[in-house]
Amino acid sequence: MTKRIPVGLVGVTGYTGMELARVLAGHPGLELVRATSRSEAGKKLSVLYPFLSGPGDLGRMGEIVVSQPDPADLAANCKLVFLAVPHKTAMEIAAALLDKGVKVVDLSADFRIRDKATYEKWYAVEHTQAALLAEAVYGLPELYRDKVRAARLIANPGCYPTSAILGLAPALEKGLVHTGDIVIDAKSGTSGAGRKAAVGTLYCEVADSFRAYNLTKHRHTPEIEQEVSLLAGEDIALSFNTHLLPISRGILSTIYTRLNKPTTLAEVHALYAARYKDQPLVRVLPAGTLPETRWVRGTMFCDIGLAVDERLGRLIILSAIDNVCRGASGQAVANANLMLGLDELTGLPTAPLMP
Amino acid sequence: MTKRIPVGLVGVTGYTGMELARVLAGHPGLELVRATSRSEAGKKLSVLYPFLSGPGDLGRMGEIVVSQPDPADLAANCKLVFLAVPHKTAMEIAAALLDKGVKVVDLSADFRIRDKATYEKWYAVEHTQAALLAEAVYGLPELYRDKVRAARLIANPGCYPTSAILGLAPALEKGLVHTGDIVIDAKSGTSGAGRKAAVGTLYCEVADSFRAYNLTKHRHTPEIEQEVSLLAGEDIALSFNTHLLPISRGILSTIYTRLNKPTTLAEVHALYAARYKDQPLVRVLPAGTLPETRWVRGTMFCDIGLAVDERLGRLIILSAIDNVCRGASGQAVANANLMLGLDELTGLPTAPLMP
Amino acid sequence: MTKRIPVGLVGVTGYTGMELARVLAGHPGLELVRATSRSEAGKKLSVLYPFLSGPGDLGRMGEIVVSQPDPADLAANCKLVFLAVPHKTAMEIAAALLDKGVKVVDLSADFRIRDKATYEKWYAVEHTQAALLAEAVYGLPELYRDKVRAARLIANPGCYPTSAILGLAPALEKGLVHTGDIVIDAKSGTSGAGRKAAVGTLYCEVADSFRAYNLTKHRHTPEIEQEVSLLAGEDIALSFNTHLLPISRGILSTIYTRLNKPTTLAEVHALYAARYKDQPLVRVLPAGTLPETRWVRGTMFCDIGLAVDERLGRLIILSAIDNVCRGASGQAVANANLMLGLDELTGLPTAPLMP
Amino acid sequence: MTKRIPVGLVGVTGYTGMELARVLAGHPGLELVRATSRSEAGKKLSVLYPFLSGPGDLGRMGEIVVSQPDPADLAANCKLVFLAVPHKTAMEIAAALLDKGVKVVDLSADFRIRDKATYEKWYAVEHTQAALLAEAVYGLPELYRDKVRAARLIANPGCYPTSAILGLAPALEKGLVHTGDIVIDAKSGTSGAGRKAAVGTLYCEVADSFRAYNLTKHRHTPEIEQEVSLLAGEDIALSFNTHLLPISRGILSTIYTRLNKPTTLAEVHALYAARYKDQPLVRVLPAGTLPETRWVRGTMFCDIGLAVDERLGRLIILSAIDNVCRGASGQAVANANLMLGLDELTGLPTAPLMP
Repeated sequence: MTKRIPVGLVGVTGYTGMELARVLAGHPGLELVRATSRSEAGKKLSVLYPFLSGPGDLGRMGEIVVSQPDPADLAANCKLVFLAVPHKTAMEIAAALLDKGVKVVDLSADFRIRDKATYEKWYAVEHTQAALLAEAVYGLPELYRDKVRAARLIANPGCYPTSAILGLAPALEKGLVHTGDIVIDAKSGTSGAGRKAAVGTLYCEVADSFRAYNLTKHRHTPEIEQEVSLLAGEDIALSFNTHLLPISRGILSTIYTRLNKPTTLAEVHALYAARYKDQPLVRVLPAGTLPETRWVRGTMFCDIGLAVDERLGRLIILSAIDNVCRGASGQAVANANLMLGLDELTGLPTAPLMP
Repeated sequence: MTKRIPVGLVGVTGYTGMELARVLAGHPGLELVRATSRSEAGKKLSVLYPFLSGPGDLGRMGEIVVSQPDPADLAANCKLVFLAVPHKTAMEIAAALLDKGVKVVDLSADFRIRDKATYEKWYAVEHTQAALLAEAVYGLPELYRDKVRAARLIANPGCYPTSAILGLAPALEKGLVHTGDIVIDAKSGTSGAGRKAAVGTLYCEVADSFRAYNLTKHRHTPEIEQEVSLLAGEDIALSFNTHLLPISRGILSTIYTRLNKPTTLAEVHALYAARYKDQPLVRVLPAGTLPETRWVRGTMFCDIGLAVDERLGRLIILSAIDNVCRGASGQAVANANLMLGLDELTGLPTAPLMP
Repeated sequence: MTKRIPVGLVGVTGYTGMELARVLAGHPGLELVRATSRSEAGKKLSVLYPFLSGPGDLGRMGEIVVSQPDPADLAANCKLVFLAVPHKTAMEIAAALLDKGVKVVDLSADFRIRDKATYEKWYAVEHTQAALLAEAVYGLPELYRDKVRAARLIANPGCYPTSAILGLAPALEKGLVHTGDIVIDAKSGTSGAGRKAAVGTLYCEVADSFRAYNLTKHRHTPEIEQEVSLLAGEDIALSFNTHLLPISRGILSTIYTRLNKPTTLAEVHALYAARYKDQPLVRVLPAGTLPETRWVRGTMFCDIGLAVDERLGRLIILSAIDNVCRGASGQAVANANLMLGLDELTGLPTAPLMP
Repeated sequence: MTKRIPVGLVGVTGYTGMELARVLAGHPGLELVRATSRSEAGKKLSVLYPFLSGPGDLGRMGEIVVSQPDPADLAANCKLVFLAVPHKTAMEIAAALLDKGVKVVDLSADFRIRDKATYEKWYAVEHTQAALLAEAVYGLPELYRDKVRAARLIANPGCYPTSAILGLAPALEKGLVHTGDIVIDAKSGTSGAGRKAAVGTLYCEVADSFRAYNLTKHRHTPEIEQEVSLLAGEDIALSFNTHLLPISRGILSTIYTRLNKPTTLAEVHALYAARYKDQPLVRVLPAGTLPETRWVRGTMFCDIGLAVDERLGRLIILSAIDNVCRGASGQAVANANLMLGLDELTGLPTAPLMP
């Protein structure tokens, strides 16, 4: 094997950190050489995660000793660093790493919102690195592939926005639907809530139940609106609503729109198929087939299904992703691949675990 | 204990039949004396369901020998019969029982749609008992309590319609929202699919996954439209969309509407609270609290939560029920209570199983 | 309704506290009048648990304002108090309440182990109320019903011990099996781990997985050994092993024993059936039927199944309970019923929630 | 990419067939060129399994048209064929394929039991290909790697036996434990029950519940006894007991043994570590760490944990595998790799999906 490009991971204890480890364990072009955590520094990764042991890369990764997040050390050893830490924390580390010449893929929300005031309103913290906002590239390859290739700093998209934006893009680009009457009913697996100890996400509080949460105030709202407004060429405000599924991984967004004129399912399907024809990680399912989150489990696919209600003149778009892989860590690796000159698909999982 | 009123159950092998057995096992005013099944006739109930054994009524119920569905035998022994059989089968048995003077609560869809042609279009079978359509009472006590008391034949509401209609009623009665732009995003536990052997509802096909199904053509659509049109006083066509949850019981309907004029959450909440003040089995949750299906697990409650998105002028209504209890068998018993002169709440479960 | 006996609950925030509320909500002879919690004092129960609202007792219970655990206040208002707090905390409160003349059912482990040294060895804390150890009655009605009736202080059995002891009792009382070769492979739902925030019991850590824990050192070991030794009339040391199930409620103990002499399944079954003939809350399932945790979900039953491996001369006993109801709060109410002169079965749930 | 070796799959509709497709989709040395099913012949794989579409091999595999199982066609196009059909069916196809010079990996039980009479007793069918029993190699690489390399016909091990045999091998080879007192308490995910429509494995019958099944008569018993007897050099009869877990994938076997002489955990651990030092797909976890099925989810690992109960002189062995990958299809590919001259680990998944 030729020498792989060394990369680092800041924040290894959450689900996005674990998933980055999984994806990188099988990656032929990138090698994880640093993993940091303030609370777990000093432990081998294989102690923290006993499943990181065995032959080859998996075992080698398990031998990494978790370190304190030190920009100098990271810069000296890595070409690129993934930030899997909470928003606000991320912006400071990103700036320090960029200063030292390291490329950064930030999985937090800190560089996703192009407008400082909007960020500060929704996230209720000051943005101290506003100078970087203009430079950061929103890392959705289907929209910004060329910019990603040239970027130093990637704002890795949120999980819900990834599913919503990819689901709406073709319809909005072609002016197929009313822009003033879009409702997104999104449902996410519990890994989206993170790996912190909390009563609300205990097994017994989530299993065999279902609920909505954060209605009218979810922080992914401005991120989705920003991107779909750019796609439509006009300011869009939409209704974005989130629910907690008793599953570990997976997002299904059911997107309700109204057609601007009578359109058949065949016509809509053809338009979507054409839009994503050259996008290997978006699958427009055959007309009549609706996505299931398990079909993308552990993979980078965004699966899209379509239904037209001719009685009501409505188009319903279903968009399914794995929130941890496509919605976070896998997409981060796709962006890293592009930034480092590798083929976008290198090392990305595509075969789902079924069942 | 005073003598209880004898009732029968046609169709004991499905989830609604099992749930009727559970509710009746603790019922102080009704006694199950007949349980029928074509495939299981001759077996004791305790053989079919080993959990129907033990002290008191539970054990007595287990001693019942499942019989063939014979209208004459049912009529000779029961004051009222619950039909938990598929649509089309139900209409014939209902007619035979009514002929013999027995009251009937039909859990199938056969008498829910008042218009014969609409029924036949959505269910794709001929309705052979159209004469009874005018007589049948739609058994939602919150809307038709007095008519239920006087009825011989109850069309027990569908599970999704129960949650949707109770969620929409206050808003439509008061003209709070646009009637032309209602979207219901409904999610149901898997028991709603019934207890027949099928690959699609195997554990490994449902667990850890989520999907939409039957978009634009679910048979509960005309039932919901019929009732909400009556409430609003105008014909309403709405977008009703269903999803399969990896839980056993529970429906959450997220209902998207647009307000006719700016209205605060407090105002909407007051209106809902007033509407349901005297309805003991509908709980309008405190403003800011959203329902969870587990809070109604095993109970007769319909829990309603409200969110107003002032930015968009939208009202989002959340309505949670247990699809097997409130959405089927528990509601059937509530109707039977009313038809037989008992207090509506007699024997109905209200304390949820938590966790 | 005649006036009910007032009772109190110390520790309302855990799953056993929640379950006590559920069982008491439908109890015709006991009325919850005090609920305490250091962290939640001042809130209405219906704010803490929105599902505690509605008509009748459920709604009245929701109006209770959570108070600080004050023995004087509890004594002035309650005839009996349930302690649903951690071990060590419980012993002090129990002593204070008994001093003031209140009966106590302690759901912690503090009074289960009759020998102070054994308690202190396994629980690694000092027992400061050793004088009460001799007085406390081990609250398993099938073994100690008469003593429970006369008791001031009940040590409510652990969940695993309840299933293990009831499973082994007939075999040991009759000398059916080797006492030196007993292995219990026990599996529990996650509610057994309590309702504290912890990464290890997050949904995403428990769902779709299975693991053993605490092997060779689970604290229920001496409790089981104490009681089965008394049943057998000799000191028994056994292998007790625990596993975590991805379910909310339920324990299944698979108990491996060796028969002292060739015995048929019919013979063993007859012996078990005879032993539990007059015990309404133990169901010896028909020979050939094995218990399922769902058949006891939400109920007070202990379901027992039997298998004889004639090839190997082994008897395998399966014992299923609901760990929260029979294994904790329901059993506590059964004991309270007996202590307060009510019929043991008063208000106890027996019809399981299926599915 | 160099040309890959063409292989076929007989029986594509079950979970083992689906898993073979997943593993082969990412395999650099083998190419699936035929997939058969009597019921689904004529459909593209991507129609049967919408998740088999996308870029590269995944998409190419989806283009395969399911065919009738025709030995001549398989022989003309494949070097090796996997049989994922029920026992009895498999033996006839295997013989026909071997006749035509094709290598066979049989995932059924038909060639696992070396003794015809034992097979016929436990499986209750006649073995019509007894001549092949002597030739078939039991495909557990850790025991028979060299024989696998030279084999024409592999009896791919059962899922439970894989976990049990690998768990017991070191202890039995070294005479560490009593051979007359071994109890295996095994728990399996529901995929082990297959993908046929059946009420017993519906979501609502399995979720939130737990049960034992087939006690004293599970067909994997003689398979385990055969192999552990060979390892110990004496005839062993053991108690093998199975339970159904509400998870999709995973087996955990808890194996209870008695030590022949006092032995510490450190000593046992050293012995196990030495035995599996050169076996890359068995991980002996650090002393004190117990396996979890999720750590092997989707992988080829068998994870082993150990506990010594010094008080009782017992050794408890925990062995976890993914029943669909290591316990069936992944192991089949490992065997195919060896039979076709590839490195054993080629294309095998090792990074688990977490969470």
